[in-house]
Amino acid sequence: MTAARPAAPLVVDPAGHVTVPLGFVAGAGSADVRGHGDARLDVAILYSREPCASAALFTRSAVRSATVQVCVEHAQRPAPSGLRAVIVNSGNANASTGPQGLADARRMTEVVAATLGLDPREVGVASTGVIGRPLPIERIATVVPGMKLSRVGGARFAQAIMTTDTRPKQVAVEFSLGDASARVAGCAKGSGMIHPDLGTTLAFITTDVAVPANDLRRWLTETADDTFNMVTVDGDTSPSDTLLCFANGASGLSSSEPDVAAAFRDALEAVCRHLARSIAADGEGAGHLIEVRTVRAPDREAARRVARTIAGSMLVKSAIHGRDPNWGRVVAAAGRAGVPLVEERMSVDFAGVRVFDCGRPLPIDEPALRQALAAPEVSISVDLGLGEAAATAWGCDLTPEYVHINADYTT
Amino acid sequence: MTAARPAAPLVVDPAGHVTVPLGFVAGAGSADVRGHGDARLDVAILYSREPCASAALFTRSAVRSATVQVCVEHAQRPAPSGLRAVIVNSGNANASTGPQGLADARRMTEVVAATLGLDPREVGVASTGVIGRPLPIERIATVVPGMKLSRVGGARFAQAIMTTDTRPKQVAVEFSLGDASARVAGCAKGSGMIHPDLGTTLAFITTDVAVPANDLRRWLTETADDTFNMVTVDGDTSPSDTLLCFANGASGLSSSEPDVAAAFRDALEAVCRHLARSIAADGEGAGHLIEVRTVRAPDREAARRVARTIAGSMLVKSAIHGRDPNWGRVVAAAGRAGVPLVEERMSVDFAGVRVFDCGRPLPIDEPALRQALAAPEVSISVDLGLGEAAATAWGCDLTPEYVHINADYTT
Repeated sequence: MTAARPAAPLVVDPAGHVTVPLGFVAGAGSADVRGHGDARLDVAILYSREPCASAALFTRSAVRSATVQVCVEHAQRPAPSGLRAVIVNSGNANASTGPQGLADARRMTEVVAATLGLDPREVGVASTGVIGRPLPIERIATVVPGMKLSRVGGARFAQAIMTTDTRPKQVAVEFSLGDASARVAGCAKGSGMIHPDLGTTLAFITTDVAVPANDLRRWLTETADDTFNMVTVDGDTSPSDTLLCFANGASGLSSSEPDVAAAFRDALEAVCRHLARSIAADGEGAGHLIEVRTVRAPDREAARRVARTIAGSMLVKSAIHGRDPNWGRVVAAAGRAGVPLVEERMSVDFAGVRVFDCGRPLPIDEPALRQALAAPEVSISVDLGLGEAAATAWGCDLTPEYVHINADYTT
Repeated sequence: MTAARPAAPLVVDPAGHVTVPLGFVAGAGSADVRGHGDARLDVAILYSREPCASAALFTRSAVRSATVQVCVEHAQRPAPSGLRAVIVNSGNANASTGPQGLADARRMTEVVAATLGLDPREVGVASTGVIGRPLPIERIATVVPGMKLSRVGGARFAQAIMTTDTRPKQVAVEFSLGDASARVAGCAKGSGMIHPDLGTTLAFITTDVAVPANDLRRWLTETADDTFNMVTVDGDTSPSDTLLCFANGASGLSSSEPDVAAAFRDALEAVCRHLARSIAADGEGAGHLIEVRTVRAPDREAARRVARTIAGSMLVKSAIHGRDPNWGRVVAAAGRAGVPLVEERMSVDFAGVRVFDCGRPLPIDEPALRQALAAPEVSISVDLGLGEAAATAWGCDLTPEYVHINADYTT
């Protein structure tokens, strides 16, 4: 992505949130969506005070949630008017909920529109949680009108969209050009049912750069392909995957200037990459972030497939949980990726150690390799020896905790 | 498979083994392949005393083990002379082992050939276990000449090919036509790295029916597609998958007679189905066999994809481990199978209970459903409402034990 061009330096705040860019406010409340009777934050709103351009990517699942169906309708409104706000709930995906689910998702946008003085079609909607249960729509509708939206509300927003996440995933990036500065920020919901396909898990990105909707969509798609779409936690693409991006121009900088466009795209990629890595690192039950790099692949698609297949292999994931230097599983996973390979040209570095070289196993210092596997981040690099293409995928180890979390999710 | 034709009744012996068909002998020994210094059976030989027809299917992985490469060479000899014997070791896959691995695999066939007075190219070879470690070839070569092969050796053969299997997987089937009778038997190695693609895990099938090699290969391929290739334990296709079938005609019955051919094919399918279900039921750490049935799919490939995707979903597998009636994950898995679906036409039965009907969730009796999920075999049925095609896939639940087993496999 970062070709040879003079790039504006980025300042990254890993605790920054979606209301760091100018002109955005957010807030969250508790509607007891799960019905547990607790006060957990589970409904959130993000809003641009000024009209803005927006871009949206959604799950490629053949079974889209009711919420996604309504959000698609609203996002596909004729330009130039884009989405200006989004309401999100956690605890219930509003998926496989039939006609009532569609009515409930529409109602969520209507109550936000009434509160903020918008057209309902200017409001996006996203839901995450259990599939196949009716939404407690009255409780959600009740909490919206009194919700306080503010310039510091982004942190609460990131918190309210979590399900089994152990921590919020958010980041803000700022760049300066001359006397002017601008920002891109984002937050995401991760953890389980993570295997994005075009869209991603729930993720929301804001920027105060002015970007035309068409460019925003194109750049978001390209960036998502190299970031969100290279994350796998469990291979299960969700019917709810949604990625929304809002660009309101409040900084005064516009992507019509090439250096702003370049800096914006760098910042966008930094935000998406940070969120993608955060999702993998906080995969359900995960103890390790796994970064898989494929190099010298025959083409980009082959590089992506091999990297994703290795990152998603249950046997590789289990081995890394156990700090087991069982690198043969990496070769085996590459072999089933559906890409023609020549084993005699393959080499593998496992946790930074060359273990397989042009088709031959090398003697390994097993205690040292086990030690390297104890790091919170484990890298796997596979040189296919066949071409020039490269790709990176992120995953996490498979642990007994993953099973515990998912064996008892609805209760 | 069983079209409307008068079928000879099958007598099934779930403890029957590969030397039940006439003319086959087998044996096993201990070569301490794992290097643990124990006397575990880990090398086995199966042999037809008379020349026989054979058919072989192998992994579609782009990275085939050295053992598979040698077995492919030998299996592809010009007809009519087929394989007559096979040597198998567990504890080491002889995969990703470079040129030495190829030499070792050839040596295994040579030592069997010398002992039995065969051409090495009449001997197949199969290996299962850890990837990327040199085979202790001298210990294997030493154990072969003294190995006792007998008519009751099939049980030891089935035992010797196990890795993390908790029990041998074998079955024998007999059918009678008039005064004559014939048999088909098989055994398989299952448990982990199970997601067959064309071939399967290690499986060996014997019959004393005379079947020409071409028919044997065609019928084996068709049967494997509906049985072994519909099993998934962890989505990881192995570089070692091998399915060998031997037909020696010792019963005096020949598939050139249509009623024998029909009975043989029924028996072959019964054997493969039994082994496929046994592999799923004994998946690593598994507590439940999961049988997924797709009906009214637009075509057979769609039916197969949806069934396999559901059976392989980590979230579905985790839910069943936890007896969690979280059927929404079934719909979500179907949605990401890469098949166009219409949710309004979909219905789902979960453990025999209709939970989703033409796109609408039904109220469920959760305690009763939890009770149904306690059974050792859990059925999931998905009606796509789009056509006439159907398919069945088998899988198992995902448990903390799976992770424990695979987190510490090489040690």
